[in-house]
Amino acid sequence: MGVRAYLDWNATAPLRPQARRAIEAALDLVGNPSSVHADGRAARALVEGAREQVAALVGAQARNVIFTSGGTEANALALTPSLVVGEARGRDRALISAIEHPSVRSGGRFPQQLREDVPVTREGVVDLAWLTERLDVLRRSAPLVSVMLANNETGVIQPVDQVAELTHAAGGLLHIDAVQAAGRIPCDIKSLGADLLTLSAHKLGGPKGVGALILADQDLHIGDPLIRGGGQEGSSRAGTENVSGIAGFGAAAQAVVAGLMDEAADMARARDRLEAGLRAAAPSAVIFGATVPRVPNTTLVAMPGIKAETALIALDLEGVSVSSGSACSSGKVAPSHVLAAMGVAPELALGAVRISLGPTTTGEEIEIFLNAWMKRVMGLSRRGRGLAA
Amino acid sequence: MGVRAYLDWNATAPLRPQARRAIEAALDLVGNPSSVHADGRAARALVEGAREQVAALVGAQARNVIFTSGGTEANALALTPSLVVGEARGRDRALISAIEHPSVRSGGRFPQQLREDVPVTREGVVDLAWLTERLDVLRRSAPLVSVMLANNETGVIQPVDQVAELTHAAGGLLHIDAVQAAGRIPCDIKSLGADLLTLSAHKLGGPKGVGALILADQDLHIGDPLIRGGGQEGSSRAGTENVSGIAGFGAAAQAVVAGLMDEAADMARARDRLEAGLRAAAPSAVIFGATVPRVPNTTLVAMPGIKAETALIALDLEGVSVSSGSACSSGKVAPSHVLAAMGVAPELALGAVRISLGPTTTGEEIEIFLNAWMKRVMGLSRRGRGLAA
Repeated sequence: MGVRAYLDWNATAPLRPQARRAIEAALDLVGNPSSVHADGRAARALVEGAREQVAALVGAQARNVIFTSGGTEANALALTPSLVVGEARGRDRALISAIEHPSVRSGGRFPQQLREDVPVTREGVVDLAWLTERLDVLRRSAPLVSVMLANNETGVIQPVDQVAELTHAAGGLLHIDAVQAAGRIPCDIKSLGADLLTLSAHKLGGPKGVGALILADQDLHIGDPLIRGGGQEGSSRAGTENVSGIAGFGAAAQAVVAGLMDEAADMARARDRLEAGLRAAAPSAVIFGATVPRVPNTTLVAMPGIKAETALIALDLEGVSVSSGSACSSGKVAPSHVLAAMGVAPELALGAVRISLGPTTTGEEIEIFLNAWMKRVMGLSRRGRGLAA
Repeated sequence: MGVRAYLDWNATAPLRPQARRAIEAALDLVGNPSSVHADGRAARALVEGAREQVAALVGAQARNVIFTSGGTEANALALTPSLVVGEARGRDRALISAIEHPSVRSGGRFPQQLREDVPVTREGVVDLAWLTERLDVLRRSAPLVSVMLANNETGVIQPVDQVAELTHAAGGLLHIDAVQAAGRIPCDIKSLGADLLTLSAHKLGGPKGVGALILADQDLHIGDPLIRGGGQEGSSRAGTENVSGIAGFGAAAQAVVAGLMDEAADMARARDRLEAGLRAAAPSAVIFGATVPRVPNTTLVAMPGIKAETALIALDLEGVSVSSGSACSSGKVAPSHVLAAMGVAPELALGAVRISLGPTTTGEEIEIFLNAWMKRVMGLSRRGRGLAA
């Protein structure tokens, strides 16, 4: 197929070489981390080393890291009425932003009648005025609020520190899904104000199939683990640990800590070049969230009159991998729930193409994309064709 | 540490070379299997190839394989009142054998009051007479029965085909945890009579962190998935697939299919040599389940007067990795729930040491173990010391 441009990092990122090395080394170890013999202890040491590395990425304590099979499971684990702090009772209600990932939107173990949507503005930012008012009313229900740090489709950064302040003032807990933010912007659990924070390894250069739920405070407990059995992960998550996956996650986290500032600057430069190219190709291109803070790697663009499905197929034929939003919902033709929550008209939303970059994205890949966009996508729109001619 | 003898295969098996190669190849692919572009399709093809391989191991259809993060999650997914067949209603009750793995004993989503223990005989075999009588009474509750194929501590094979007959005659469904049986004895889902069957990759030479719940019939549905969000795994289990882990699982399953008869014979030979050595060292050694059918790789032995904890430490110093039962419960000093269910006296049960072999276990490893056992363990028992002198 020749040189491809992989610009779908929000779906999954290429494995970092450090992560690959850590995985391969872990595969050489035979022991089960729960075994007390030397083989078991060697596996345990790897897991605990990775726990320190992942904790360091978010400024948490290693003992507060619960490894899971991914961001989706971590979100499912977090969203439970059984969250207790010290002697306090659980949660009577969950306030979930309208633009969360499907794994959060599904509400975990909160039944439908205990869940409420938190609306967003037209720019895709959680509506703080609405939240202020609503939390004032819900003060007695010790709510769990779940707001992501960066949206997976638009890349828009949410004002989670302000959400945290409002939530805590109302006696609530804040869960932050930081899956799409880690590796792109700083994610210090204390500065963000999160009580629980979700990470996924494969979005930041670790392997698929591993993630973590991280607690800010050791007094916070999940009263009812999702997966029960053995006493692994401090009895918060049973099952033999994914040792090689966890080792790869740790190595990727460490690489992010070491390189974030440089990587973010590189991504922002490539993203700016990309968006300049898109705007030059057609002034009618709509870049969602362009007027508010976004992570440096994500561009969600729509061209009036162009369908994303058609564009993706055309771009794929040119060797370009991009998406029409969350990979989880690929195949569906309904417009994105994120754009719907932002009040974007369905016909425009159905044209939204997400281009997401990473720290090793090259200028050549951006040019491959822009050339393919000009050649294949602009031609799909009568209006676009006119402008590109 | 010199040459070690790893004889704790029931805790976790060394990775098969075929699995390692498949994992490494999978790590080279960048795509998310849910993405529609070429990178995503390549990852999807790997996952679907592995699904065929895992299905073939148990004679199931690939579309009925639900990949999970391991045996524990597969068991948690299976144990839910929301299991429905066609138009039929869910399960009102779960009958769970007293010797199941902790992930099954925990009951999944069946509340305590809907769970019942199925007792076992002194040989560690599910009590069919009891079950016959109880199922006759429970006919109206469409029960879920959960009985493992081979016990993880004793290796005793359960009469699951008879359990299936009784269960189905009562309108119930049978879940079989085959985690410790796969790779040791044939596990054909239809011959066994299972409606749901659990596998774990790392017990049969695949990587840790991946398993599967396999359904015998496509009309059977899990009404309420444990982990919700995206539509992966036929909407039965959300979350980006552990692509490399699944690829390794598939390769390991394929290796098992190719080599089971030879491997089982090799294991049985090594196990027989081991048990002959144990009996020669001390006629007072108790080998649990020795009079009933067992998988060919597992020996659970106790010496009157010897504590397993002490023996394990002594053996570890001699380079031998064995365990005192389930790795999940390591660290605890309470006697095994399996031996308790068999009516074994606590003082003998606290001495139980599990030696579990694999297809690549060498005669040298058996000799290392027996030498260490003579030198270190027999000396721990006054009676043993007398015999070993």
